[in-house]
Amino acid sequence: MNNALVRELYDRIDALPIIDIHTHVNWKTGTAANIGEILSYHYYTELANSAAFQDGKFPFGDPEALTREILPKLALIANTVQYDWLMTISREFLCLGPDEWRPENWKFIFDRSLEVMDRPEWRDELVAQANIVKVFLTNQYDDDLEGLDTSFYAPCLRTEPFIVWFDRADERAKLGAFLGRPISTTDDLRAVITKTFEKFMRHGMGYAAMSIPAGFKTFPVADEDAQRVLDKALAGGAWDCCESELWRAYAMACICDACRRYGRPFHLMIGVNRDVYAQGVPAGQDLFDSVNSMRGYDHVLNAYPDVSFPTAVLADTTGLELTAAAWIRHNVYPSGHWWYSNQPTDIAREIRRRIDAVPGNKAIGYFSDAYYLEFILPKFRMYKFELALALAERMERSLIHPNMEPFGLDDALEMATNMLIHNPMRIIGISGLA
Amino acid sequence: MNNALVRELYDRIDALPIIDIHTHVNWKTGTAANIGEILSYHYYTELANSAAFQDGKFPFGDPEALTREILPKLALIANTVQYDWLMTISREFLCLGPDEWRPENWKFIFDRSLEVMDRPEWRDELVAQANIVKVFLTNQYDDDLEGLDTSFYAPCLRTEPFIVWFDRADERAKLGAFLGRPISTTDDLRAVITKTFEKFMRHGMGYAAMSIPAGFKTFPVADEDAQRVLDKALAGGAWDCCESELWRAYAMACICDACRRYGRPFHLMIGVNRDVYAQGVPAGQDLFDSVNSMRGYDHVLNAYPDVSFPTAVLADTTGLELTAAAWIRHNVYPSGHWWYSNQPTDIAREIRRRIDAVPGNKAIGYFSDAYYLEFILPKFRMYKFELALALAERMERSLIHPNMEPFGLDDALEMATNMLIHNPMRIIGISGLA
Amino acid sequence: MNNALVRELYDRIDALPIIDIHTHVNWKTGTAANIGEILSYHYYTELANSAAFQDGKFPFGDPEALTREILPKLALIANTVQYDWLMTISREFLCLGPDEWRPENWKFIFDRSLEVMDRPEWRDELVAQANIVKVFLTNQYDDDLEGLDTSFYAPCLRTEPFIVWFDRADERAKLGAFLGRPISTTDDLRAVITKTFEKFMRHGMGYAAMSIPAGFKTFPVADEDAQRVLDKALAGGAWDCCESELWRAYAMACICDACRRYGRPFHLMIGVNRDVYAQGVPAGQDLFDSVNSMRGYDHVLNAYPDVSFPTAVLADTTGLELTAAAWIRHNVYPSGHWWYSNQPTDIAREIRRRIDAVPGNKAIGYFSDAYYLEFILPKFRMYKFELALALAERMERSLIHPNMEPFGLDDALEMATNMLIHNPMRIIGISGLA
Repeated sequence: MNNALVRELYDRIDALPIIDIHTHVNWKTGTAANIGEILSYHYYTELANSAAFQDGKFPFGDPEALTREILPKLALIANTVQYDWLMTISREFLCLGPDEWRPENWKFIFDRSLEVMDRPEWRDELVAQANIVKVFLTNQYDDDLEGLDTSFYAPCLRTEPFIVWFDRADERAKLGAFLGRPISTTDDLRAVITKTFEKFMRHGMGYAAMSIPAGFKTFPVADEDAQRVLDKALAGGAWDCCESELWRAYAMACICDACRRYGRPFHLMIGVNRDVYAQGVPAGQDLFDSVNSMRGYDHVLNAYPDVSFPTAVLADTTGLELTAAAWIRHNVYPSGHWWYSNQPTDIAREIRRRIDAVPGNKAIGYFSDAYYLEFILPKFRMYKFELALALAERMERSLIHPNMEPFGLDDALEMATNMLIHNPMRIIGISGLA
Repeated sequence: MNNALVRELYDRIDALPIIDIHTHVNWKTGTAANIGEILSYHYYTELANSAAFQDGKFPFGDPEALTREILPKLALIANTVQYDWLMTISREFLCLGPDEWRPENWKFIFDRSLEVMDRPEWRDELVAQANIVKVFLTNQYDDDLEGLDTSFYAPCLRTEPFIVWFDRADERAKLGAFLGRPISTTDDLRAVITKTFEKFMRHGMGYAAMSIPAGFKTFPVADEDAQRVLDKALAGGAWDCCESELWRAYAMACICDACRRYGRPFHLMIGVNRDVYAQGVPAGQDLFDSVNSMRGYDHVLNAYPDVSFPTAVLADTTGLELTAAAWIRHNVYPSGHWWYSNQPTDIAREIRRRIDAVPGNKAIGYFSDAYYLEFILPKFRMYKFELALALAERMERSLIHPNMEPFGLDDALEMATNMLIHNPMRIIGISGLA
Repeated sequence: MNNALVRELYDRIDALPIIDIHTHVNWKTGTAANIGEILSYHYYTELANSAAFQDGKFPFGDPEALTREILPKLALIANTVQYDWLMTISREFLCLGPDEWRPENWKFIFDRSLEVMDRPEWRDELVAQANIVKVFLTNQYDDDLEGLDTSFYAPCLRTEPFIVWFDRADERAKLGAFLGRPISTTDDLRAVITKTFEKFMRHGMGYAAMSIPAGFKTFPVADEDAQRVLDKALAGGAWDCCESELWRAYAMACICDACRRYGRPFHLMIGVNRDVYAQGVPAGQDLFDSVNSMRGYDHVLNAYPDVSFPTAVLADTTGLELTAAAWIRHNVYPSGHWWYSNQPTDIAREIRRRIDAVPGNKAIGYFSDAYYLEFILPKFRMYKFELALALAERMERSLIHPNMEPFGLDDALEMATNMLIHNPMRIIGISGLA
């Protein structure tokens, strides 16, 4: 590692504004109100629960109590990158160094966080300090989007209710309420999707998205077959595995049809196993499956050549499959480094694969997945450091590699800018930014 | 690679005493009696058989002849880390440099090994030289444990006979003989497990363990269903695949019940395909399956939140799954680097993942899997070098990483000490060591 | 990275002659006739199609038009190693630097390529410049091999028609035409295989080969069962999945029988999913499956201990499985780095695994998979650079590693020579080279 070069590259990359194409930020608040909310992020509660078990039970409703409880456990996770994110938040936003993070100091930290974060101007200050220019959200079809600042936020539609939760009567009832009539035909499904897209498009829709279970399959499904399966559900019958698969494939195609009609991408997030850890904290009960290929997506990717599919994968074992798909498939775009793969070891490998084998205009470098705006800066820094390291290596390689031309600082910076700015803007279709 | 820093870190880590939480050492002998026994370790016979085929046939009963036969083939595997272990044994214990390892020199090497190893004091000298303080064994339920030195050794129960070999009438008969009555009910199964745990606990039991085939599944099984399957076996019927799965899930839960009752961990070793290479040497006929996830363990890990599951995985493709499981599950502890994953490339990746994402009090750094005490030192050295390298990189990163605080030599050493000493002691429950 | 050492090692390794054990070169032409043919290689058309979609449609029949069309898109893939191969061809063979590769310059580049490549002496000049001494081909059973220069080329038999395409009546008819009578019995299958091997042996046969779909299974099949399945096909019936599997396992064994009889290796290329990308260019529609283990090959590898199986895997997830197989199985030889795994990240990992754990006489370093002789040099350079890097690291490690003896430049070069020259010669059985 050439420290000076890596640091120089990092500093240059860090100067780029941040476009964050996937977050779970609540647009009505944006930032956290105090450090207790920061610590309620599942990364801290799940790691604390894992390091010193308390059956997933934390005082989530009481930020002060949560802070007091989590703090003594942080020493057990001080090695993790998640802890590093927290220290960056503390240093950069609260002006508190890591040595302040002693258990007995919890009240002081909490009060300082209130001073900083619990002010009306905090959101704007933070956004300016972190140089964040565009943030994509995660929204349900019935989320309130009135008043959304579309110059900064873009709502993105989670499509699980239409596709993977549709066997649940209460989910269908909610969809019916949104549509204004019960969902009893496949036409109703298409109507509620259309109504949803119309609503989202009025608010500057980013894209449709789904976090997809391992083993998902797509294949052509006739309307009549989908209707038959829907009829069974409406009659109170439970779907068997094949009926579930059929509905999911059908409904996913309906979403793709809408993406095509409205010219919006469909962001795939592949490979999660939901609700597998019984004693986990909220949002800390999901894992992934190393046995999961992208084969199940062949049909939908082929059937919708005019829809763009930015794609994130949860398993390291799907990393090269994603690179290969983006290498030959014109409508697959590798997108960021998701969740369990969002740590230096796996980021580093995937960055190199994508730089070496995917067309330079196709990779979307990173997204934060943040729940509060405060997390965007430290997470992007983690990524940008790995990117700087990969680019510094490429510069050094180019000096002696028999197949390579000189690859200089400007080339490296251009590559970083494409991955972090130009590619997401063009692929997702972001306008109004320089 | 910062050579000076890596070497300094390595030397400091190497000064730590060795706690070896998994071996196949025979406690009655401990060490090898000569170099022929060292060379009978399957790593050498299997690599020799692979490099210059002789149908798995070596003179295993005659250490001199084995030495004479293996020696000329060692040149073909001189690139391997297994050969490096052998050279370390030769240099450190026999005071013979690698250039002595010429085929025509076999008798000289053999005689020197007798001089050193075939002495009553050799075991104690070796243990002192290698600074080994605690060694965990691999034992069958009916192994003779009388006279075991529990201050140095801890017996660990292999549970395959109860779980995966139980369809074999002769295995059931042996279990019945141990219990004192035939095994004809699930109560008998529980009784023989209890009798086994009682015996092991009297001798300072380490933990229960199982090396588990790829594709293993756990799920709740009622006593009646297990009894029904057992009845079929007792009547001479062969189990189909579902009945096998049912029994295995049931019997594994019975072992977990015992672990809970006796407060002992259950060490999982996941993903082996046994007896797949027909022409292999003894213990050199097994491989692994890259298609194998930890999904099948969800039930048992959830159902026994109060049992600790140190876990080793055989496939590289399960590495991040194990990291993710240890990251959120409070009762999963990543344990060492097993067998085909026990080489520098895969150790290096998994060390980094675990350091970055698993709570610092949860990873058990390493175990040797050794058949003779002589192998513990070279194998731990291999690991410690990779660990030193990872920690040196972390120190260098911390100097320029935008999210990291300075990470110094003392921090690195503390992390290494946790992984090699404190974590195994606390997780397995080792008392009496500093 | 020690730049000076890597470069010195690279230069020494680059001085070795090239033995290329797998290509798709057309022996009647060998080289490309112009840069349009070079650009018709699927790597360029597929990357161009992926970066700037045109539905897989390029003017493949018109090299000038193809050059004009591809050139403006190259800027989008200038980051890829495939582009680096092209620039090496341009620089080394056409004496054109990368800055000449401007869209408006297409005619100049094309004309220069004609000047160089469209000469009768070009093939010999290229072979001398790149120092290529032996090239293995990919041939169908009915390819014309008359006049093949067996001192330079070795024909290798693609066995898909016998094994995986045999359900197609037109393929069976072609085989029957080659045999001289319709294929209606398993004896006919064996006869057409024998006739094919006889033909290939007369022309210096390299080996039999197959690129094998993910999920392939081998198991013993009786002649009668194969005949029954064949009868169904002859009667116009379509095979179900089990019948297909049965035939494939049977026919693969017939090929193995022939390999045994004629003393030729069977080169396995494992894990491709054919024809999955509908809008792809020719030869750019295939991907791979990360869910695929080598388990399915246990039977055939055991049943033919006297047949050598050089083996390449397409998925990164099969990399350690291949290393483990070659580590213990005497008749499995890791062979090169194939297709989607043929890029620096995955080459680097597999080189290290193989060097650390596979007997030194077993790994076949590399093959180019080239369609024109021009690609051999740049592809081998890519590999040789990664090999130099791995060996330089090994040299540096050996200076401070507690288990390693000094590993010097000569040792590194010997290892490289084994992987690139001696191993392929001995394993494939190449005679007549120094």
